[in-house]
Amino acid sequence: MNAPRVLEVRPLTREGFARFGDVIETDASRSFAINDGTAMRFNDLAKIDVLMQDGRAALSVFRGQPVRFPLQMSEVERHPLGSQAFMPMGVIPFLIVVAADGPDGRPGEPCAFMSNGRQGVNYGRGVWHHPLLSLGTVSDFLVVDRAGPGENCDVAALPGRYLIESIAL
Amino acid sequence: MNAPRVLEVRPLTREGFARFGDVIETDASRSFAINDGTAMRFNDLAKIDVLMQDGRAALSVFRGQPVRFPLQMSEVERHPLGSQAFMPMGVIPFLIVVAADGPDGRPGEPCAFMSNGRQGVNYGRGVWHHPLLSLGTVSDFLVVDRAGPGENCDVAALPGRYLIESIAL
Repeated sequence: MNAPRVLEVRPLTREGFARFGDVIETDASRSFAINDGTAMRFNDLAKIDVLMQDGRAALSVFRGQPVRFPLQMSEVERHPLGSQAFMPMGVIPFLIVVAADGPDGRPGEPCAFMSNGRQGVNYGRGVWHHPLLSLGTVSDFLVVDRAGPGENCDVAALPGRYLIESIAL
Repeated sequence: MNAPRVLEVRPLTREGFARFGDVIETDASRSFAINDGTAMRFNDLAKIDVLMQDGRAALSVFRGQPVRFPLQMSEVERHPLGSQAFMPMGVIPFLIVVAADGPDGRPGEPCAFMSNGRQGVNYGRGVWHHPLLSLGTVSDFLVVDRAGPGENCDVAALPGRYLIESIAL
């Protein structure tokens, strides 16, 4: 059996993540004052794509146990009927592992990103991703995804086994 | 001119808030294990009601300036085309002021609630409410509301002036 391949972890940026979905973060480019200037609105930060097959948006909280290192990964999942957004409730760095489709529609080589703790992500509909990877402590995330009829979770093997040795928090 | 009436502030509970919308909070009754037991999902915590007139769900962040006490209030707003959910990004107590419709469809007497800092709220479609009332420090809230065509904000006067003297944090 081949040894697992070590995954490089890159900082999460809109550019780097663009083909997988949205980085949800506050920056001036999408903001304007509301409520007589007592608040800023960072507007419409993710493409919520949940209406296929009579779907609707659902708002939930995921409470994740921290991962243990070394972290080995061999499979990912996708939601063919809807996007799925994760936003940390607090300043909570977390890991994101995603994979583009390979030529056969199965997961290709994965990429790993690290949130700065204030950034969330919105996986595009059908994008292969690893389940929630919390770090350090039990962590809550607000999740906006799809509820509705139909089978909305595929699981598939990655092209090999992958490893992240540790993360400096 | 009459003196402002002092508003009593009550703890936010699902029962007390039911006629205005949802309290978004994690409790065991709506939770189940996911991801091979590495996370809990507190599922579908708010009725996201945003599809009228070609609406869609939008995910935004509101950054609120803290209110100054004594807090005087004389008007509220409502969104006739959609619900609006606010979830604190961290442990952030905040005030919620809402009003049921009076007999003429204008705002009736307001009620004030205090979040425990982990609770969010989802104002039902068309429910009169005061704009965001952050406490103590600049605070971020994740907001899920409606984007789309049509006029979606009415502002109206309360039946009088109302006052909250202070809040002990």
